[in-house]
Amino acid sequence: MNVRDRYRSVFASGTTTERLVFFSDAVFAIAMTLLVIDLKVPVPGTQTPWQIILGQSDDLFAYALSFAIIGLNWMSHHRKFRVIKSHDGPLMMIDLVLLFFVAFLPFPTSLLSDYPGDPVAVVLYAANVAIVGLLQYAIWSYAWRKGFIEREIDEPLYRYVRRNQLLTPIVFGLSIPIAILVSGTAAMFFWLALFPVNVGLRLWDARTPSAARPPARRSRG
Amino acid sequence: MNVRDRYRSVFASGTTTERLVFFSDAVFAIAMTLLVIDLKVPVPGTQTPWQIILGQSDDLFAYALSFAIIGLNWMSHHRKFRVIKSHDGPLMMIDLVLLFFVAFLPFPTSLLSDYPGDPVAVVLYAANVAIVGLLQYAIWSYAWRKGFIEREIDEPLYRYVRRNQLLTPIVFGLSIPIAILVSGTAAMFFWLALFPVNVGLRLWDARTPSAARPPARRSRG
Amino acid sequence: MNVRDRYRSVFASGTTTERLVFFSDAVFAIAMTLLVIDLKVPVPGTQTPWQIILGQSDDLFAYALSFAIIGLNWMSHHRKFRVIKSHDGPLMMIDLVLLFFVAFLPFPTSLLSDYPGDPVAVVLYAANVAIVGLLQYAIWSYAWRKGFIEREIDEPLYRYVRRNQLLTPIVFGLSIPIAILVSGTAAMFFWLALFPVNVGLRLWDARTPSAARPPARRSRG
Amino acid sequence: MNVRDRYRSVFASGTTTERLVFFSDAVFAIAMTLLVIDLKVPVPGTQTPWQIILGQSDDLFAYALSFAIIGLNWMSHHRKFRVIKSHDGPLMMIDLVLLFFVAFLPFPTSLLSDYPGDPVAVVLYAANVAIVGLLQYAIWSYAWRKGFIEREIDEPLYRYVRRNQLLTPIVFGLSIPIAILVSGTAAMFFWLALFPVNVGLRLWDARTPSAARPPARRSRG
Repeated sequence: MNVRDRYRSVFASGTTTERLVFFSDAVFAIAMTLLVIDLKVPVPGTQTPWQIILGQSDDLFAYALSFAIIGLNWMSHHRKFRVIKSHDGPLMMIDLVLLFFVAFLPFPTSLLSDYPGDPVAVVLYAANVAIVGLLQYAIWSYAWRKGFIEREIDEPLYRYVRRNQLLTPIVFGLSIPIAILVSGTAAMFFWLALFPVNVGLRLWDARTPSAARPPARRSRG
Repeated sequence: MNVRDRYRSVFASGTTTERLVFFSDAVFAIAMTLLVIDLKVPVPGTQTPWQIILGQSDDLFAYALSFAIIGLNWMSHHRKFRVIKSHDGPLMMIDLVLLFFVAFLPFPTSLLSDYPGDPVAVVLYAANVAIVGLLQYAIWSYAWRKGFIEREIDEPLYRYVRRNQLLTPIVFGLSIPIAILVSGTAAMFFWLALFPVNVGLRLWDARTPSAARPPARRSRG
Repeated sequence: MNVRDRYRSVFASGTTTERLVFFSDAVFAIAMTLLVIDLKVPVPGTQTPWQIILGQSDDLFAYALSFAIIGLNWMSHHRKFRVIKSHDGPLMMIDLVLLFFVAFLPFPTSLLSDYPGDPVAVVLYAANVAIVGLLQYAIWSYAWRKGFIEREIDEPLYRYVRRNQLLTPIVFGLSIPIAILVSGTAAMFFWLALFPVNVGLRLWDARTPSAARPPARRSRG
Repeated sequence: MNVRDRYRSVFASGTTTERLVFFSDAVFAIAMTLLVIDLKVPVPGTQTPWQIILGQSDDLFAYALSFAIIGLNWMSHHRKFRVIKSHDGPLMMIDLVLLFFVAFLPFPTSLLSDYPGDPVAVVLYAANVAIVGLLQYAIWSYAWRKGFIEREIDEPLYRYVRRNQLLTPIVFGLSIPIAILVSGTAAMFFWLALFPVNVGLRLWDARTPSAARPPARRSRG
């Protein structure tokens, strides 16, 4: 084993993900809290407080939406890493790219709050959210292929998580052509489709007969 | 057990709250520290430093007040989670909503510092503080009902914490009609009622004879 | 024991300081990193980059000074809490007040960078730094009196740390009358007295004969 | 042993690096996330969202570059501290200086995004990145000399990491005379040399025959 291989085995992979998760949590928390910075009180004297609040209603909506999106992505990231028990270099790189797009979300949020319904702003926002979802998908399936996920998780459970992870990218991805071909406002309403799709899937899952555990464990990687 | 139920038992609940608490701590810390950003030094040359400090006295007051409110809420959150030993999806959601309103406080703070005593600014601020308190209340009573609180805490102790948690929402909630019907400044003075109410309760508690521990533990959930 | 006393014994004190230290670390880190926000690039087109850097030399100096002050206070806080093994409510309150003044430092920094040498700006800055030092002193002596410090630390060692903790408050405190009576610039030069005082104390300490450990441990609290 | 020496042995060194790493991680995370603050949406009404995005393309490029640089430095810092098992005062000081320059990067980033290709902005940026790399180098070689690195790491592995750590400072350092003598844009293209140099080194390493582990461990410190 030459020095490069030894380097990789000692430094670039690990049997814990504690520090990776800590770092990711910090970026999620900061990105969420920074959103409020965009809510600015204008120079005093020009407006009454009531006009300011009304005048910022688009910003408030955008702030709440992005807070919810980052918060739910944090929860989803957090749940995945409860069962991802080791990591390597590529997994860290995917996670850093994910964090890049999480930390970037305040910019499209700000654009969307200043130009609500504008197709370009809607497309940028939807693309950002869809990319974050796809990167979460990539973390999950990469960790599975590499055998980083703990044995308790069998293939049906892995696939269940993977399928649910696709919902957000699909809905936000489909809203992009809607924003271009129909209108930005229509695309924003389309985002609401997440709720009925979610409920529908839950009803479907509830109907599914209690799946027998697969008798043998799949071999991985 | 179908795949959805298995997902919930593996991912959406847990026997620790470490990461949830870490994430919450980070948001509390960031929100507190971001408050100072609102303290802005105006373009140099127009005022002397002394005028700037005097001119920012409302901002300084608002900064100190919000810092204290977030700090005390952090302490209260921290104490609750010392005895909350497990969690599930809804508890995480309540906590995320709490964090939303904690991270939001800099906006009403900024509005209040620019329009001190204005009824609208006072109402928004008071409502934000009251909502934060109610969500803390919700975390505590939800965790109790679900049996997430460690056995050491018996019902009188649970109720004691719950009662104290109501003080802030009640005082700030009552200040809202005062701001509307009387004046914003009166409502802000009313916030000071927290101190005598607190002292009164402590005297009352000290008078209460040493309550015998309930002989049998209540059954939960 | 009535319910209030039981509350205090369960919630308001603890045999660890982990979470308190984590929260403090986060505020220190955020306050340090936020300082750079004050370094602003002016509207493009009006100046060359070289003029911008020169024009911001006061800001750069103030940024580096405040970064060093917060960094050294973090180190000092961190070292204290390596041997402080438990806490109670008042210790948390002192720590929160300390964090308030740490998080506040960016404001005097900004004022000082815009009005370098101005007596008022210098006094505000020096007072802030002195207060932070005094609160560190308060944490250390409170923790000692309450017996929160681990047994390994004997009285000479406790006093050694306490004495060193006084240096910064004394030097920055003395600079306040200098700023008022002489000039702000003189007071800023006086801050540099920290270095010779430190070196002098080290030489003095090195000369001190190897102090025999006190034969008996003092009783505390 | 006099009190100063006892102080140093108890407070100023330690057999863990957990808290140092935590603090550093927090500063890295905050610096990365703060970068996005520089991406500002101009006053509404003057431009279309599309013009805003195009007009900010330099900012977006600078944001992505700095995010990648801080992210890769975090990864590198993180990997080093997986094998650095203890610390002393000087190591903490080097780390604080490193964090200073990490937290400072948003300023050159902002300057570079407003004056892309300007030699002064390029030099400041390149110098900042090179200094961060040299400080990482200093942490690694200081920790080695002091015997803080765990025994598993032998000299060839230590040197391998040290050599790789030099790549970024060399490339960014060499770009400084290029920016001065040729042009800022040429210097920025030169940064891309990192990629072929990296690939070349990997090919070279792969060709190296599997180095036999040195039979005896070197003695340290």
